[in-house]
Amino acid sequence: MSEPLDLVVRNARVATASDVFDADIGIQGGRIVSLGRGLPAGRREIDAAGRVVTPGGVDAHCHLDQPMAPPVRMADDFDTGTRSAACGGTTTVIPFAAQEKGQSLRAAVDDYHRRAEGKAHVDYAFHLIVSDPTPQVLNEELPALIAEGYTSFKVYMTYDDLKLDDGQILDVLAVARQHGAMAMIHAENADAIEWLSKRLEAAGRTAPRFHAHARPMLVEREATHRAISLAELVDVPILIVHVSGREAVEQIRWARAHGLKVFAETCPQYLFLTAADLGIDDSYQGARCVCSPPPRDASNQRVIWDGLNDGLFTVFSSDHAPFNYEGDAGKKPGGEEVTFRHIPNGIPGIETRLPLLYSAGVLGGRLTLERFVELTATNPAKAYGLHPRKGTIAIGSDADLVIWDEREFVLNNSHLHHAVDHTPYAGQTLRAWPAVTLIGGEVVWDGAFHARPGRGRFLTCGAPSLVPQRRGNPS
Amino acid sequence: MSEPLDLVVRNARVATASDVFDADIGIQGGRIVSLGRGLPAGRREIDAAGRVVTPGGVDAHCHLDQPMAPPVRMADDFDTGTRSAACGGTTTVIPFAAQEKGQSLRAAVDDYHRRAEGKAHVDYAFHLIVSDPTPQVLNEELPALIAEGYTSFKVYMTYDDLKLDDGQILDVLAVARQHGAMAMIHAENADAIEWLSKRLEAAGRTAPRFHAHARPMLVEREATHRAISLAELVDVPILIVHVSGREAVEQIRWARAHGLKVFAETCPQYLFLTAADLGIDDSYQGARCVCSPPPRDASNQRVIWDGLNDGLFTVFSSDHAPFNYEGDAGKKPGGEEVTFRHIPNGIPGIETRLPLLYSAGVLGGRLTLERFVELTATNPAKAYGLHPRKGTIAIGSDADLVIWDEREFVLNNSHLHHAVDHTPYAGQTLRAWPAVTLIGGEVVWDGAFHARPGRGRFLTCGAPSLVPQRRGNPS
Amino acid sequence: MSEPLDLVVRNARVATASDVFDADIGIQGGRIVSLGRGLPAGRREIDAAGRVVTPGGVDAHCHLDQPMAPPVRMADDFDTGTRSAACGGTTTVIPFAAQEKGQSLRAAVDDYHRRAEGKAHVDYAFHLIVSDPTPQVLNEELPALIAEGYTSFKVYMTYDDLKLDDGQILDVLAVARQHGAMAMIHAENADAIEWLSKRLEAAGRTAPRFHAHARPMLVEREATHRAISLAELVDVPILIVHVSGREAVEQIRWARAHGLKVFAETCPQYLFLTAADLGIDDSYQGARCVCSPPPRDASNQRVIWDGLNDGLFTVFSSDHAPFNYEGDAGKKPGGEEVTFRHIPNGIPGIETRLPLLYSAGVLGGRLTLERFVELTATNPAKAYGLHPRKGTIAIGSDADLVIWDEREFVLNNSHLHHAVDHTPYAGQTLRAWPAVTLIGGEVVWDGAFHARPGRGRFLTCGAPSLVPQRRGNPS
Amino acid sequence: MSEPLDLVVRNARVATASDVFDADIGIQGGRIVSLGRGLPAGRREIDAAGRVVTPGGVDAHCHLDQPMAPPVRMADDFDTGTRSAACGGTTTVIPFAAQEKGQSLRAAVDDYHRRAEGKAHVDYAFHLIVSDPTPQVLNEELPALIAEGYTSFKVYMTYDDLKLDDGQILDVLAVARQHGAMAMIHAENADAIEWLSKRLEAAGRTAPRFHAHARPMLVEREATHRAISLAELVDVPILIVHVSGREAVEQIRWARAHGLKVFAETCPQYLFLTAADLGIDDSYQGARCVCSPPPRDASNQRVIWDGLNDGLFTVFSSDHAPFNYEGDAGKKPGGEEVTFRHIPNGIPGIETRLPLLYSAGVLGGRLTLERFVELTATNPAKAYGLHPRKGTIAIGSDADLVIWDEREFVLNNSHLHHAVDHTPYAGQTLRAWPAVTLIGGEVVWDGAFHARPGRGRFLTCGAPSLVPQRRGNPS
Repeated sequence: MSEPLDLVVRNARVATASDVFDADIGIQGGRIVSLGRGLPAGRREIDAAGRVVTPGGVDAHCHLDQPMAPPVRMADDFDTGTRSAACGGTTTVIPFAAQEKGQSLRAAVDDYHRRAEGKAHVDYAFHLIVSDPTPQVLNEELPALIAEGYTSFKVYMTYDDLKLDDGQILDVLAVARQHGAMAMIHAENADAIEWLSKRLEAAGRTAPRFHAHARPMLVEREATHRAISLAELVDVPILIVHVSGREAVEQIRWARAHGLKVFAETCPQYLFLTAADLGIDDSYQGARCVCSPPPRDASNQRVIWDGLNDGLFTVFSSDHAPFNYEGDAGKKPGGEEVTFRHIPNGIPGIETRLPLLYSAGVLGGRLTLERFVELTATNPAKAYGLHPRKGTIAIGSDADLVIWDEREFVLNNSHLHHAVDHTPYAGQTLRAWPAVTLIGGEVVWDGAFHARPGRGRFLTCGAPSLVPQRRGNPS
Repeated sequence: MSEPLDLVVRNARVATASDVFDADIGIQGGRIVSLGRGLPAGRREIDAAGRVVTPGGVDAHCHLDQPMAPPVRMADDFDTGTRSAACGGTTTVIPFAAQEKGQSLRAAVDDYHRRAEGKAHVDYAFHLIVSDPTPQVLNEELPALIAEGYTSFKVYMTYDDLKLDDGQILDVLAVARQHGAMAMIHAENADAIEWLSKRLEAAGRTAPRFHAHARPMLVEREATHRAISLAELVDVPILIVHVSGREAVEQIRWARAHGLKVFAETCPQYLFLTAADLGIDDSYQGARCVCSPPPRDASNQRVIWDGLNDGLFTVFSSDHAPFNYEGDAGKKPGGEEVTFRHIPNGIPGIETRLPLLYSAGVLGGRLTLERFVELTATNPAKAYGLHPRKGTIAIGSDADLVIWDEREFVLNNSHLHHAVDHTPYAGQTLRAWPAVTLIGGEVVWDGAFHARPGRGRFLTCGAPSLVPQRRGNPS
Repeated sequence: MSEPLDLVVRNARVATASDVFDADIGIQGGRIVSLGRGLPAGRREIDAAGRVVTPGGVDAHCHLDQPMAPPVRMADDFDTGTRSAACGGTTTVIPFAAQEKGQSLRAAVDDYHRRAEGKAHVDYAFHLIVSDPTPQVLNEELPALIAEGYTSFKVYMTYDDLKLDDGQILDVLAVARQHGAMAMIHAENADAIEWLSKRLEAAGRTAPRFHAHARPMLVEREATHRAISLAELVDVPILIVHVSGREAVEQIRWARAHGLKVFAETCPQYLFLTAADLGIDDSYQGARCVCSPPPRDASNQRVIWDGLNDGLFTVFSSDHAPFNYEGDAGKKPGGEEVTFRHIPNGIPGIETRLPLLYSAGVLGGRLTLERFVELTATNPAKAYGLHPRKGTIAIGSDADLVIWDEREFVLNNSHLHHAVDHTPYAGQTLRAWPAVTLIGGEVVWDGAFHARPGRGRFLTCGAPSLVPQRRGNPS
Repeated sequence: MSEPLDLVVRNARVATASDVFDADIGIQGGRIVSLGRGLPAGRREIDAAGRVVTPGGVDAHCHLDQPMAPPVRMADDFDTGTRSAACGGTTTVIPFAAQEKGQSLRAAVDDYHRRAEGKAHVDYAFHLIVSDPTPQVLNEELPALIAEGYTSFKVYMTYDDLKLDDGQILDVLAVARQHGAMAMIHAENADAIEWLSKRLEAAGRTAPRFHAHARPMLVEREATHRAISLAELVDVPILIVHVSGREAVEQIRWARAHGLKVFAETCPQYLFLTAADLGIDDSYQGARCVCSPPPRDASNQRVIWDGLNDGLFTVFSSDHAPFNYEGDAGKKPGGEEVTFRHIPNGIPGIETRLPLLYSAGVLGGRLTLERFVELTATNPAKAYGLHPRKGTIAIGSDADLVIWDEREFVLNNSHLHHAVDHTPYAGQTLRAWPAVTLIGGEVVWDGAFHARPGRGRFLTCGAPSLVPQRRGNPS
């Protein structure tokens, strides 16, 4: 202890998922090594007096440089995407290594590592997307990859190139159960969406706003009930991603009341957008807000807030899906024949996730600060086996921190650091933004972004720890 | 920092409601001042290597030396009751200053202070019991007492000498709302119990086991629904105490799903006892397990475990009510005319609360360690305005700690330190017990009890912090 | 059969709760003795070609000449009230013999017989209102009266002069169970209404519209849940009267799903009025629509329609409570100090009940004709032990019939035959009205009213037959 | 009326879905033409004094001579099947004209007519089974067939050769909506059953009792929720067939509470059998009781009884599926490799349906006689557009009647008239059996069966009339 600390964050108002207290944070070797008052001087010091310091955000649902069917292309790669994350206070991302049908999962993982390596500014782990659960995948690749630290995978109940049928989902869930992995489920009924979409198109209802008509809440509710049922059959926890409103929420509450381990995620679009943002006429502006499930309405926003507050939701993620509005690669349709079905699904949000929730939730009196930390950092880290290294401020944890600046301003896209040409939240008033983001004790954002591509390390994940497990000894 | 620490708890496996991590805990002036690895030597050291260290328990529902109608008398006063608490890992208790009808609340509080002063071995705050909400009480005493740090009160929907009618409950809840206090509600329908009891007695069904027949789950369910409705009308959070099983749980889930701030407490008797413990014949042995609501059955125990695990329950308390079995002051009836209605309601449990839950919950794989801490310490402290001074391991918090010893043994009453002549949990196998309990950095239990009557300080309570509040600046 | 029939209703489109078919209806001695096509000529004939003929309505919830606290007085006695009933197609009424506190039930019944005798134009039975369940009442009067044909009674959970506490309700329900009677329950929480009313008055919010503020849906929901719970405890069917909207409906659905025999009634005011009819400003016009529970809103009207259609509701009654608007005896307040609490509760509706439901329900495509008959005639007769004598068109049943005239007109009070100075449904468009009403084969209404005071006979009631019973032999 | 009646059923205790009353029933030309007391003498008379007479049963779910994959073959054709029906009081059957994949619906109907013609002893209509909803089928065949009187069709969510995917179901439901037909849905999740079955087989769990393990309630619940959701999307009524227990019931209650028109059917196997009847060891005896969904347990039987009583269930059918136990065509497996998956699904019950429900329901005090009639005759006739010609005792209805004999006996297969070599209800005690069955006024069963193949006429169906419709003029 004779050695001075690398860094002391002084006089912080430290927030964890449990507590808010005043302390200095001592950092050595990229980790938090001491918490106390009046810590001895460090080599470097940051004064956080009067400022809330939270764990760096863990964005457990985001898409970066994920291969798409041409000409569609994601605007953010690991460089710009993680830059954007860092500037918005997110220090760990878990994007998706997506298997294409016919491809081996291993190949997908290898490809995705190539895309990330040397580029990432924040630490990252990979979820897998299982789109082709062959016996080889189920019996060999998945178990091996889980053992290597890829302990979560997502299955889709919709999208032609990704969706699994119920039997395949059961197969994948059985692997999750046997090997202790976490399954994420995108729950929307593919057939119903297809059926509605065709009818809408046949009726000439092709503008972006009809995207919401093609995916009403019951389509999400049905798939949520089905996903819960399949998980109940296999007796394995699942996490339903991007829950949008009342009907899916009711199904999840039903499951919990029956003792099922069903976790749920929601996203900023279900708090800060409504279906009206997809347009009220046939203009294409609304394409900017096309995501799935679509945003609902104000009464559903309240349902989501209630769920965030009372513990229904476990995780708050961005579902960042970075498509430009302009250009062939993006959301604005090229030709006359184009309908809402051709708009790439998803909106950018990796940078705005934390400031939006901090502003409207913590400062707006809707969430305690502890719950904010739990939803944005601690729980995502637990859900995907990164805790306690990530997601908290505790001795031994990585020194990933956000020092908050509480001030009001109106957001526009020029504030952001992604490579996307718009933000759906433009015009909204924020009341806070990270003053400083630290990753492994290193300042990456302090009003300016301090680029160091490759700073971000790949993280192998352990077993999910949201639910009790046989306790072993920590290392 | 040149001054050596008063005490260092070395190599602890520290558990909070958020995290589990390895650290030394530095203590100065009775408070936790540093967390880190390799802290400098303290004046005293305790080696916790390989041991879990949790915040000292906060027992937010216990009865000590509460005046009863003669000849009934509580066996534990503040001396023996808090001794028992300390030996079981509980470092803060919140017993009840109970208003008698006709009495001023202030007088009840003053009397209760006299009973506590100079006797307590652990810190204590007071809940109020409001049994006579006169205008004077509502408009003057309660607001004044809340301002002085008595920020929670309990109302009863049953018991002739305590129960309020619905209009009185609304009045009390309105005070809670206006002054930011927390209302606890004992929810059982008094009329229904009375009606059933008379019928049972008339039929000669007077043995202790008929206590459970007189208080079926629907009696609790109805009052729970009513309490929720009254709170909804006033728009104020409430906390339903000692929830016993499925039917009340369903009502609380219903309330949460409707966005109501309804919190809930359960107790060891609903996890570790069943109605069968009240006796299967007419012997009086079962009187030992008479409490209200009564224990239910195994399927309801599972419902309670589910609720503890998934966040339905906020608080886990003992509802310690220390009556001897033998003797006129206690549970065993004196004469032939005596029926189950004359058995004092309540069982001892202040010392066994934490070891029972740690054994069956944490070590039994039913609860995460974080959730154990949250239920037994952090949340009770938040619910009643004692957090973060109490209920956690954080910089600035009181150095109230439990160092756990994981070993298996069969419990009997001779292990315990209360003044009660029995424990309803005798014969149950425990897998853990506190090795050491520290209060304000002072060892009160390390296998031996270190008495120092008056060590326990009275605590004034702030506003409940379970739900978001306008954040002010911390001191 | 050589004897000619007294009357043949020719070519009727006969509707029962089961069927709609074309037939002649043969009537002899006041009863239906034959149904067929081409019945031989009767002494009299009525041509019903092209017309629907339903059983005469049974209005199982109406108030006539019920003693009130002076100066309030009901505008309708048995003469004008049953005249109004007959002109609107109702041929049996079951008003209330109301016990005053301190009075014997027998005295109340005797008094009520005096009020009815020689005056009624339609047949009538009596419900009892039990407001003072003394041992004498419970153990002697009620059993005796049930045996004499008073097989239903109503208990109130609100109104100071009528309300029973939960223990009293249990006592009354136990009598219902033991003697096979039907208990009707007015479910609103008295304390909550009182509490709200005082606050509203204290705030100067005294206009009629605040009546609805004093009785929000949760006040009804809570009492409904409580009533269900008390009935569950006693294990006896109950019938919740005048259910107004979603929240009470949900409780009743919950009860049914748990196998409880909970029946429900609704009334025209919950389909055809909303809270807005109580006024949107402070004018006293809205006093005309003051009833309890108050009308809700359009979305609740839909809930009530759904419940009528799908079997949730068993009975559709008027809750006719005939108070004038003008004058000291009625709804318009006399002085300046008067508030919504002083407005007599209840609205007239005995004549409009059937035409409103036939118009909007049957002709509006919301209800089948069979369901209309079931709700307005068959089920009320079964619920209160008058079936099959009343409530249907079957061999042996009383020849109480309505021949419908389907034509559109706008209702105003001059169309009606009650003694009340207004109708809350004035201005509504009806699409049908009775062309002819027959009671015991006698025409009482055919566009003109054919008075014969005393025509109406007192009916003794048998056991309720909504639920299975040991079948005996019919006489 | 000078002409004497063909037949008078004298002194009947007539039961309809609405009423029970004493009358003579006059029959002319195969129809009921008069109801009355003291009807003039008919050419023939049947004395029904002291006997309940109900409408002939309408079995709206039965399989007769339906082509199966060889060697499996149905034991009953239209001759033996309708003989069995008649002897058990059923006078109308609606079996299924099943489309094979690749076949035109029209061809299936034509083939089925050939199988029925000249053989049937009771009247019959056809449901269609749509297994291949090609554009030709959806746009041309179905609309044409509906117009011709085939107004109901069944879709399967399970069975490889029959199941439709969700998109196909939506297509079929859209036709039902557009053309006013009724869709019946067999709701079990095919993939889940397949997945479980493979696992069971792989584990050597191949005995009949594992049939129930392969189809747990959640498999039915999930599909029920999905079917409801698809119907909600299309906004069309559906009828869920053969509901087996609590979990599906909860979904249907949920749908009703949300205003959806979801009707439900249950069958004798869910009241009188349990999963234990499939065997408690590995013997093949239990194959006799293999049907889908499988019977559940006693607590689920209570849920089904509650649903019959309170209106949840609309229809009570047999789901008669006549497979022998012995022989290659039947249920007993031929070889060693055979598992529960190879047992033909379904049990015989066309003859026992009414006596079982009359005995345990009406005489057992669980159902009113009116509800018995509604469930077994009136509602099935309404659901499938045969009312009021079928399903009731009313003027103009077909003279299809059952005169009941109330006597107790133990059932065995020799009592029955099907061609199946067993009955799963052997050994059960019945308390009633038809004394006489009349079809169109002709006695077909009076203790002896009076064969007249071809007596049974094909019935074209009109629009379903369970829900309100624009009323037209009856013919």
